[in-house]
Amino acid sequence: MPFVQSIESARAERIGTDGVAAAALDDALARSGEALDWLRARHADGALPLLRLPAAHDDLSTIHDAATALCAGASDIVLLGTGGSSLGGQTLAQLAAHGVPGLGLLRAGARLHFMDNLDPDTYGALLGKLPLASTRFVAISKSGGTAETLMQTIAALTAIKDAGLAARIPELFLGLTEPEQPGKRNGLRALLAHHSVRMLDHDPGVGGRFSVLTNVGLLPAAALGLDIAAIRAGAAAALAPVLARRPPAEVPAAVGAALAVALAQTRGKHIAVMLAYADRLERFTRWYVQLWAESLGKDGKGTTPVAALGPVDQHSQLQLFIAGPRDKLITVILTGAAGRGPRMAADLAALCGEPDFAGKTIGDLAAAEGRATAETLAKNGVPVRTIHVDELDEASLGELLMHFMLETIIAARLFGVDPFDQPAVEEGKLLAKRYLAGA
Amino acid sequence: MPFVQSIESARAERIGTDGVAAAALDDALARSGEALDWLRARHADGALPLLRLPAAHDDLSTIHDAATALCAGASDIVLLGTGGSSLGGQTLAQLAAHGVPGLGLLRAGARLHFMDNLDPDTYGALLGKLPLASTRFVAISKSGGTAETLMQTIAALTAIKDAGLAARIPELFLGLTEPEQPGKRNGLRALLAHHSVRMLDHDPGVGGRFSVLTNVGLLPAAALGLDIAAIRAGAAAALAPVLARRPPAEVPAAVGAALAVALAQTRGKHIAVMLAYADRLERFTRWYVQLWAESLGKDGKGTTPVAALGPVDQHSQLQLFIAGPRDKLITVILTGAAGRGPRMAADLAALCGEPDFAGKTIGDLAAAEGRATAETLAKNGVPVRTIHVDELDEASLGELLMHFMLETIIAARLFGVDPFDQPAVEEGKLLAKRYLAGA
Repeated sequence: MPFVQSIESARAERIGTDGVAAAALDDALARSGEALDWLRARHADGALPLLRLPAAHDDLSTIHDAATALCAGASDIVLLGTGGSSLGGQTLAQLAAHGVPGLGLLRAGARLHFMDNLDPDTYGALLGKLPLASTRFVAISKSGGTAETLMQTIAALTAIKDAGLAARIPELFLGLTEPEQPGKRNGLRALLAHHSVRMLDHDPGVGGRFSVLTNVGLLPAAALGLDIAAIRAGAAAALAPVLARRPPAEVPAAVGAALAVALAQTRGKHIAVMLAYADRLERFTRWYVQLWAESLGKDGKGTTPVAALGPVDQHSQLQLFIAGPRDKLITVILTGAAGRGPRMAADLAALCGEPDFAGKTIGDLAAAEGRATAETLAKNGVPVRTIHVDELDEASLGELLMHFMLETIIAARLFGVDPFDQPAVEEGKLLAKRYLAGA
Repeated sequence: MPFVQSIESARAERIGTDGVAAAALDDALARSGEALDWLRARHADGALPLLRLPAAHDDLSTIHDAATALCAGASDIVLLGTGGSSLGGQTLAQLAAHGVPGLGLLRAGARLHFMDNLDPDTYGALLGKLPLASTRFVAISKSGGTAETLMQTIAALTAIKDAGLAARIPELFLGLTEPEQPGKRNGLRALLAHHSVRMLDHDPGVGGRFSVLTNVGLLPAAALGLDIAAIRAGAAAALAPVLARRPPAEVPAAVGAALAVALAQTRGKHIAVMLAYADRLERFTRWYVQLWAESLGKDGKGTTPVAALGPVDQHSQLQLFIAGPRDKLITVILTGAAGRGPRMAADLAALCGEPDFAGKTIGDLAAAEGRATAETLAKNGVPVRTIHVDELDEASLGELLMHFMLETIIAARLFGVDPFDQPAVEEGKLLAKRYLAGA
């Protein structure tokens, strides 16, 4: 069942002057019609491969086969890669934390390690304790030039050689990077090709932060036994109203983008809080932070995403969201938690003076808190958009992911920025290499 | 060695109009003198027990003994508690992730689980797989009325009873809540007292988000073998310049607070980014988010904290920080990473076209990136405060924690808000209970 988005509690008619005025929202929605036209044109001409992924099936068996080969005999799989090369996989992997039948292609007790940060102590300790003969390393970098991933890969190759396992490198490693392109250096490909390591192709037309529906995200998902076809099908559901030429007001991604941009431009809501009620969406909130921040944060534009998790952040950030500066739009994602989890015994509930707990579950409380938080925010004049996900599974997560990629692209067109580049970070990379050379 | 704070790259003289003007900073510093007087008065009259903790020793053996009893025979310790009842412990526990001699009082392979969020699937799955006979549950709630913690505790008690272990409840559980106070109901105390569970006292004068230096944070730290006296000693180093009546410009916490408030009030820097370069500071950034958000976010005041981790968030949020809206002050925490971690073989470095990697370590790159990021931000006119921590250990982490608690209290006085309350979250709690009753 598709998720249900509501922006009623973000409207000025409902919450007062901090909400979006009908005219401002209508204006932004009208402008998003151009973005929808643009998306349909790119879907038609194939210039934005992301838009063809939801309906693609051909590559799924390749991904499944690669995952099968990767998992054979593996006790540990270490995913090397940072930012967009990791967060999509982490987001999908978190879905498998509970509730999937088993560990998929992995043997019992096997583990995935996402090494997305570069920390000398963490990585050194990991290499020191992994059973190297049964560990697989997957190095992911679109350009093949990501310094962190190159260093991690070199260190892993060295550890394997030091352990006397050099002959097994082709079996223990896997690379995922762009295909060879004339005149373009790819350090990761050169390094791994020298060691006869098998390489998968990173789609050259899909940037890291939009890559969750490609093999970058689906390979770890398949390893964990997730239904990767269902993830794609969920994504297709989010894209469907765009392709069906529905008016912007009936395209959830256009509504979300118009709301965020109108609130930023007319009400000074420069912070976009993503507050998800489910542990299994924690990595999703971080994935969203990268997507929104890096796609929109340019030319002085964009809004700042903030990740939050419910109910725990009611005890951390909610005070600020309700009573601090009036600069936020809050998106609350509610999942079907009611009725789930351990149930409260009546005698124990009575003992602690909470008779209303009797017979209720932990999920009942989490669901009640999510609903109450959304309503309390709105009642205090803070604009809230809610998204209800009935059952958190491959299809609904795929839909959420595609929804927010579309929403981000539409918002970028409304702000007038290019969602697909990240020019500001190059300067620091060059400076870091200079400092490293002099270290 | 104490950390070194620098605000040079946040000054208008250095970075241009987005930096703080000397006059604005001097004004805020002068005003922070009143806050320092207030802190000294509260230290003298004992009305703010937090300020007496750094020099306190009497309770350390009690905490150590409680941790020893808790760990005896334990395979798993589950810490129940949310927000301030958990984040301090998590922050300290992360320090023990690597680099400490062993697992402290815990037997090899034993694990701590911080269940700070309420998620029916996560908690149900955990209870289902824990070896209950060797698991210990620690329930932490200052008021004893935190609904999430009560439900988690009830569920754990029920699981233990269902496993036929009811007679061992006094040994398997531990409570941490305020002492009995006439006329004040404490649900957690009533529930656990009925089961003859031992209770530790939560200091009634230290709120959750300021409790990391009390038994709330130090109990898990001691279990992991951390030197809890050194944590307190580090905190004392941060407090020392306040007690020594140094002028505000020589008190790092006053300088940090004055900078943040002056930039918010005169330059519209309404977002405070905490960007730490070390995996072991990841929970610290979340602890900081709660501290800053909940203490300052009231009466429309405060600034919004954003947690970030380096280098990974260079690939996620840095584009926005550099080129997005000019509404941020960035605090970069650099740790002594240079020279640490796996070292790059020259032949492999050459293979991937990065000859400058040869002989360098992963820590060298992380350190170069941290330095380059701070400089790139400043070069692009984004105000940056840097904190250099030479060696991340109990003393330096204790210093950081106390520094930011002091900085937050001083900032609250500059903003004119009470840092110790959180009135806005009560409404949602009541509403959630009403929804739960009707669920």
